[in-house]
Amino acid sequence: LSDLLRGGRLAATRKDVTAFTSSIAHDGVLFRPVVKINQAHVVMLMEQEIIAQEEGRRLLQALQGIRRLAARPGLEDVHMYVEEEVVKATNDRVGGNLHIAKSRNDQVSTAIRMKLRRDLTRLVATITTLQDALLDTAGHHLNTVFPGYTHLRPAQPITLAHYLVACVDVLERDVQRMKEAYPRVNQCPMGACALATTSFPISRERVAELLGFDGLLENSVDAVGSRDFLLEVLAAVTIFATDVSRMVADLIVWSSLEFGLLELPDAFSATSSIMPQKKNPDVLEVVRARMSRIQGRFASVATSLTSLPSTYNMDLQEITPTLWAALHEAEASTKILAELYPELRVSGRPFEKAGYAFTTATELANILTRKYGVPFRAAHKAVGAVIKALVEHDGTSRDISTGLLEAAVKENADLALQIQQQDIEDALNPTRFVDAHHVRGGPAPREVTRMLKTRRRRLRSSRQWVDRKSADQSDAEERLDRESTAHEAV
Amino acid sequence: LSDLLRGGRLAATRKDVTAFTSSIAHDGVLFRPVVKINQAHVVMLMEQEIIAQEEGRRLLQALQGIRRLAARPGLEDVHMYVEEEVVKATNDRVGGNLHIAKSRNDQVSTAIRMKLRRDLTRLVATITTLQDALLDTAGHHLNTVFPGYTHLRPAQPITLAHYLVACVDVLERDVQRMKEAYPRVNQCPMGACALATTSFPISRERVAELLGFDGLLENSVDAVGSRDFLLEVLAAVTIFATDVSRMVADLIVWSSLEFGLLELPDAFSATSSIMPQKKNPDVLEVVRARMSRIQGRFASVATSLTSLPSTYNMDLQEITPTLWAALHEAEASTKILAELYPELRVSGRPFEKAGYAFTTATELANILTRKYGVPFRAAHKAVGAVIKALVEHDGTSRDISTGLLEAAVKENADLALQIQQQDIEDALNPTRFVDAHHVRGGPAPREVTRMLKTRRRRLRSSRQWVDRKSADQSDAEERLDRESTAHEAV
Amino acid sequence: LSDLLRGGRLAATRKDVTAFTSSIAHDGVLFRPVVKINQAHVVMLMEQEIIAQEEGRRLLQALQGIRRLAARPGLEDVHMYVEEEVVKATNDRVGGNLHIAKSRNDQVSTAIRMKLRRDLTRLVATITTLQDALLDTAGHHLNTVFPGYTHLRPAQPITLAHYLVACVDVLERDVQRMKEAYPRVNQCPMGACALATTSFPISRERVAELLGFDGLLENSVDAVGSRDFLLEVLAAVTIFATDVSRMVADLIVWSSLEFGLLELPDAFSATSSIMPQKKNPDVLEVVRARMSRIQGRFASVATSLTSLPSTYNMDLQEITPTLWAALHEAEASTKILAELYPELRVSGRPFEKAGYAFTTATELANILTRKYGVPFRAAHKAVGAVIKALVEHDGTSRDISTGLLEAAVKENADLALQIQQQDIEDALNPTRFVDAHHVRGGPAPREVTRMLKTRRRRLRSSRQWVDRKSADQSDAEERLDRESTAHEAV
Amino acid sequence: LSDLLRGGRLAATRKDVTAFTSSIAHDGVLFRPVVKINQAHVVMLMEQEIIAQEEGRRLLQALQGIRRLAARPGLEDVHMYVEEEVVKATNDRVGGNLHIAKSRNDQVSTAIRMKLRRDLTRLVATITTLQDALLDTAGHHLNTVFPGYTHLRPAQPITLAHYLVACVDVLERDVQRMKEAYPRVNQCPMGACALATTSFPISRERVAELLGFDGLLENSVDAVGSRDFLLEVLAAVTIFATDVSRMVADLIVWSSLEFGLLELPDAFSATSSIMPQKKNPDVLEVVRARMSRIQGRFASVATSLTSLPSTYNMDLQEITPTLWAALHEAEASTKILAELYPELRVSGRPFEKAGYAFTTATELANILTRKYGVPFRAAHKAVGAVIKALVEHDGTSRDISTGLLEAAVKENADLALQIQQQDIEDALNPTRFVDAHHVRGGPAPREVTRMLKTRRRRLRSSRQWVDRKSADQSDAEERLDRESTAHEAV
Repeated sequence: LSDLLRGGRLAATRKDVTAFTSSIAHDGVLFRPVVKINQAHVVMLMEQEIIAQEEGRRLLQALQGIRRLAARPGLEDVHMYVEEEVVKATNDRVGGNLHIAKSRNDQVSTAIRMKLRRDLTRLVATITTLQDALLDTAGHHLNTVFPGYTHLRPAQPITLAHYLVACVDVLERDVQRMKEAYPRVNQCPMGACALATTSFPISRERVAELLGFDGLLENSVDAVGSRDFLLEVLAAVTIFATDVSRMVADLIVWSSLEFGLLELPDAFSATSSIMPQKKNPDVLEVVRARMSRIQGRFASVATSLTSLPSTYNMDLQEITPTLWAALHEAEASTKILAELYPELRVSGRPFEKAGYAFTTATELANILTRKYGVPFRAAHKAVGAVIKALVEHDGTSRDISTGLLEAAVKENADLALQIQQQDIEDALNPTRFVDAHHVRGGPAPREVTRMLKTRRRRLRSSRQWVDRKSADQSDAEERLDRESTAHEAV
Repeated sequence: LSDLLRGGRLAATRKDVTAFTSSIAHDGVLFRPVVKINQAHVVMLMEQEIIAQEEGRRLLQALQGIRRLAARPGLEDVHMYVEEEVVKATNDRVGGNLHIAKSRNDQVSTAIRMKLRRDLTRLVATITTLQDALLDTAGHHLNTVFPGYTHLRPAQPITLAHYLVACVDVLERDVQRMKEAYPRVNQCPMGACALATTSFPISRERVAELLGFDGLLENSVDAVGSRDFLLEVLAAVTIFATDVSRMVADLIVWSSLEFGLLELPDAFSATSSIMPQKKNPDVLEVVRARMSRIQGRFASVATSLTSLPSTYNMDLQEITPTLWAALHEAEASTKILAELYPELRVSGRPFEKAGYAFTTATELANILTRKYGVPFRAAHKAVGAVIKALVEHDGTSRDISTGLLEAAVKENADLALQIQQQDIEDALNPTRFVDAHHVRGGPAPREVTRMLKTRRRRLRSSRQWVDRKSADQSDAEERLDRESTAHEAV
Repeated sequence: LSDLLRGGRLAATRKDVTAFTSSIAHDGVLFRPVVKINQAHVVMLMEQEIIAQEEGRRLLQALQGIRRLAARPGLEDVHMYVEEEVVKATNDRVGGNLHIAKSRNDQVSTAIRMKLRRDLTRLVATITTLQDALLDTAGHHLNTVFPGYTHLRPAQPITLAHYLVACVDVLERDVQRMKEAYPRVNQCPMGACALATTSFPISRERVAELLGFDGLLENSVDAVGSRDFLLEVLAAVTIFATDVSRMVADLIVWSSLEFGLLELPDAFSATSSIMPQKKNPDVLEVVRARMSRIQGRFASVATSLTSLPSTYNMDLQEITPTLWAALHEAEASTKILAELYPELRVSGRPFEKAGYAFTTATELANILTRKYGVPFRAAHKAVGAVIKALVEHDGTSRDISTGLLEAAVKENADLALQIQQQDIEDALNPTRFVDAHHVRGGPAPREVTRMLKTRRRRLRSSRQWVDRKSADQSDAEERLDRESTAHEAV
Repeated sequence: LSDLLRGGRLAATRKDVTAFTSSIAHDGVLFRPVVKINQAHVVMLMEQEIIAQEEGRRLLQALQGIRRLAARPGLEDVHMYVEEEVVKATNDRVGGNLHIAKSRNDQVSTAIRMKLRRDLTRLVATITTLQDALLDTAGHHLNTVFPGYTHLRPAQPITLAHYLVACVDVLERDVQRMKEAYPRVNQCPMGACALATTSFPISRERVAELLGFDGLLENSVDAVGSRDFLLEVLAAVTIFATDVSRMVADLIVWSSLEFGLLELPDAFSATSSIMPQKKNPDVLEVVRARMSRIQGRFASVATSLTSLPSTYNMDLQEITPTLWAALHEAEASTKILAELYPELRVSGRPFEKAGYAFTTATELANILTRKYGVPFRAAHKAVGAVIKALVEHDGTSRDISTGLLEAAVKENADLALQIQQQDIEDALNPTRFVDAHHVRGGPAPREVTRMLKTRRRRLRSSRQWVDRKSADQSDAEERLDRESTAHEAV
């Protein structure tokens, strides 16, 4: 514990104990916010005439002079560091007033929120970049017929662009959740002090304004003790992590030798030390693992908060580094994926393989229903029977003859049809299949083209959000600097 | 697997295998939504002239006739059940067309969303009831001076009302997150079919409208394969669970014999089979345990989704019951807490105990600074030194004399003061302390009264949201019934 | 709360509250153990002359008469049920003595352990069956050359038997962990009473012996409050679940159309309602999902226990059903896998595909080193360069000529060699590759044959363990029945 | 990717990609083991005459010369580092042979196990120290009557020593689990190479022996791909973490002002920056938070492993740092607790407070049964009725008169008794209560003294285990050095 505090109540602590409880190793990222908070607080104290102008000026000058967090043994945290530096630069009397009407409890929650709003904005920006990369890639693959899978089995033809738009939409909801969390992050706890506010006539609104917050975390007990804003962001990142892990799992499987649908860029792969023919998806595997790690980070924090007594406990200090780690892992992985996707190459012609050809079977059933009036389930059965027969005899879709199909329809629906060969060919052609699926949200190139357009628009709005929030954050900093300078000069 | 499907591809499955993979034990809750979806789908098929009017009429009549899900061995799921019942009530030809242009993949996601929007609305309503109970209770305790804790140590006096408003605010953010999740839940996947939409000229918009959705889950790959809406709701419930567990942990500790701050209502407590003097917080402990269980439910689902191949896999079937369980646990616990809080009785007069009296120490330091010009840190140190001396000699706050305090100020700030006894008494009086903390968000009764008013307003808006959503859901059902009847009659 | 208890301390509870806290819905599985515990307890009370022989006889007869747990509204738990039934069958005076020197706290922990030791034994037995199935399957595939994967890329040839033995070994460690947990489960808490034992001169050793425990959970505070035995079993099941999920993930991928290495048995697959060509791995996906659910169950319980006050809290009641659920899910999944594995058919000839052929590349490098003295890394580089060239020109391993290889060695190792064509052919032949890898633990058929033999031996010892534990459990029950009857007859 | 490998298959990777996938930041702890492994491997290669003696000598000398892991940009991992350094110190030809018959896959798993066995041994040693501290503290508190709690309500008197022995027993099972995990950790994967062993005539047994392993991780697919040993250790640490968090939660509550049972040592507490009277349990809160964090670390790794393809994937690299972090957190927290417990001071005389006195109520009921023949449940009810009446009239246990009790017995058991005042006083005296509870495992000082003795014996055996394992590890290192030197000298 800092000497500043220990004049009073307790006997001296031990160095090993301080080292154990100190947050200083993780406080670097909170240094700037803590200085800013102190500036804003002093400006407010001057305006409210709680401290003398001269005192305030000296405090502001002292704060100006602290350039960085210089860790030293026995240092408890960034809050004490800043206060000690100010006392050093002024004296006990002046510096000792910096802490009027505030506490570490409100200050640390405020500082976390200031860093978090920046990190959250940056993560949204990075996801936007990934979405952009996906849309660009999709733009090149509007006509790339691609197997659509369910249960990891080829189900029906879609296009690669269609799949990529689905990824963009999933990420869009991730972005929405992060944006919606933002206003709950960007509330100012300052003035809550230890937990009961203060009897000094402070202006909480003014501090919140100077620090660029959207409003106050009003109730002071709530202000110092709640970390749901943090858990909410972690939850959003965790959901995002599951989404990304699914995208990555697709790529790992599809770029396997056996699937052979995609070729990973060399620059994002690795070879083996002993098996020269290998091309391992190292980057994707690392992303996958980091996404799983984020799951655990959420669990860490949620477990810490469960049944924790209300208001401030040291446990709250310990959960913050986990938040930063999750955000960092999410951002770094997103960034590298944004560079990887555009480098993917489509390889192979899957629909020439026997198994894939059957993926258009539903369309054959549909045509039997639509054009020949076969009841849907009967059509389904008939086509199924045909495929079963072919699979058992190593046949392919090319072996689906009119005769075979007519016999199956007779058997399953008791209908005698004359089916045209061209209908079979049309139904089985994957490109025609895709074109025929042009209802809203379908894989047909013209529908995907339309979707691409609307996604690009949405993306622009996300980017505007990012720009606006970044500007708000920077503007607040500059405004505070100006106010601070003005007050120093008074 | 239902016989309906197996005409085709595969040899018969075994009963134990069907029992293993069947979801029928959990499908009861999806029965109504699945019937509704089929109704809406048939109406649309008729309107789009994909099926004949006569056929549509018979399908609608058959759907009307299915009253309940009658589980039978070998039954795969609710989707097959409804289809089989319709086939029974009509015939293969007519009933076989029910499945045109849809699939279990889009149908199940739609059904989950329909049930979920109801459950979510009901949970929000229940939380609103709890908030209401907290505000009512707060209304009775505006002047109930209560210790505010940090680190489970009495820190400063607040009021019970002040604390309860903090709980209301925490829950308010939980409600916000649930409300914000709602529009992402209330999107319609129908028409996505297996994953690639259909070549039939369906109107996805019409089905969405008939089922009361806010819009389409547009991209069909996304529509059948994404469960982030479900994980998001679970995340919101999980954060809510941590919040509730903290509230409950407070009550368990505060109602302990030793804290003696609150008396739990007898009706919500239990005695021991062997220790007749016990009054155990059984209800609160069960709530706490259920909140922890919800953490695990989130982990279950998140782990299931991690690295899962895109689109539909059977894993998605398995995560749904976990969602319902979490929602049920959250709602039942909330409901019982809403009944418990108003029955809490405040017991004891904590501020007469030695230790509590020192909780006003900050105010003494503040007065030294504000009135006597002692630099803040020095005032803090001086007060700390006085308390340390008293604690060591088993003194209480009543032993803080002017002389003692003046000596401490001299020692710590090198200032010779003449302190008035009245100032000390004022500072140390917890009621005066609370009154003096009247800045925004503080515990002063007039400030808490103001906050109560704004919270009541917010609560009204939450209730309106609940009413609006409930009405939307019911209206949609009725509208669909009308449309369905109209189409039957054509 | 049962009327039995409420004569005393508290006003009547409400039905909704009892329903909320009651464990009766989950207590069915504890009914038999609870009756047994009461029998053993009465026998001991008689032997220690704490109760009169006549009283003891009537209690034992009454216990004999309770056939099943008949849930009724307002019933708190199985412990009260049994006591109430005994009171009904005797009278207040006699029945009222059943609870002398015991408490629900020690009784419930004892009952859980009695059920758990059975469930654990059965799970071990079931895993043994799965291991047996794997060994049998392996026995048929000693010479089935199969690609060994790393990073989901074919790395080197192994055999299917080699892989299956690896699975058996993984499961063996799971079994070991469960066996090692058993003695910690099988300790008797009885006599700890509420938490401080009793002043009656009971014999805890005798009760433990009568119930077939290995010993006492000695310290009474530990006895009633610890659930690490339960969390440990859950941990073992959770690790097992990750192991099984990996095995299942392999099967899902390998049985895909694209990998085409294995054909799933029809009886364990499903088709799609709309895509007749599909053969979905439903059973495997459900197993995978359940394994993920088990992860969450562990998290539930671990979170519940974290920071829980020592000794008994109601939270402990709430975690028990989670344990049973996890055990049930593990057992059912294991059982179905034991039936599935032997039905797997190997399909395709992977090593005829271009990509797979390169999986013997390490052997080519090894031969260059071993026979031609090329430094290892240089050999590796040379082979890598050859493969790179071939991959770029769509060549296969058949195109690796002596000339090409010699050039690569010259380039990378500056050595001029004369390589024999036969050496290349030998190196690249996957069957020869497998044969050459006959060091301990390698894929060579003779080595795998040896490993199969040792695994069969180990399996026998596992089965003996299961038989011994089952016998111990049954013997204890019978012995208790005999003792009980003897005491009734006295 | 290191240049060493890239001569071959892939185009150059990018620096950002290498930085993303590199494990070098976490590989420091594996440096020593990796060097040792290489030494043992070379010795074996020489003995098996796979490499020339001269070559082996030079490799061993080169290995001897590598002093530390010097991270440099673009460095992939510690394995490549060591190999590159050896190549530098020798040349391509000699150094290039270091990698004969091994792979990073087997090497990394071996290195993790070597570090893990040390860390696990050290953690067991540290827990032993904590147990020792608990036993010492218990030795001073054999007669310190202390409230035993259930449901956080005082239930019955025990002694502080009795409680502390319970903690020792809980920790003992933690230690058992760790010891039982050890032999599964201490198995050698070397020789498994990439996954299929090698065609070189290596001796896997010899390498395992040189590295001090208990045996081989035999099947090579299992050897490179399994991480259950790691998850098992994490599970043991996680269970330990829940146990410790419960112990710590007890201390936090008991040292609260209100419970006032224990005084935390000043050196392990902290004061508030604004509330000089506070004495916060910072150390305990930090421990509690770290224990929760460990829960999440388990979840991270379990999620990563779930459904992971068999054998090696990069995900395995990513889970290792999580293991080290959990072990470090567990050890540091244990160490500080071992220093904290002996400094705890017992404060207050709880049994003089009204509420606590009733904690002996069971004994009063027992005496009614034992001495006066009142049926147990009736005695319970009678005592409950008396206490209820007293609580309602703010009475204390001193107000339990013979008349009151006789009346209650009459009412509840319809028995007319003449109760002696002395019996009431004896029953209600907490010290007599404790003395009377002397059955096995009970709180009576003579029974706890006996338990202390047996625990001290067990502790000695744990320490012997630690010493033996430490010696084994060091002996292996030294033996290897000797062998290595001998081979260098040949």
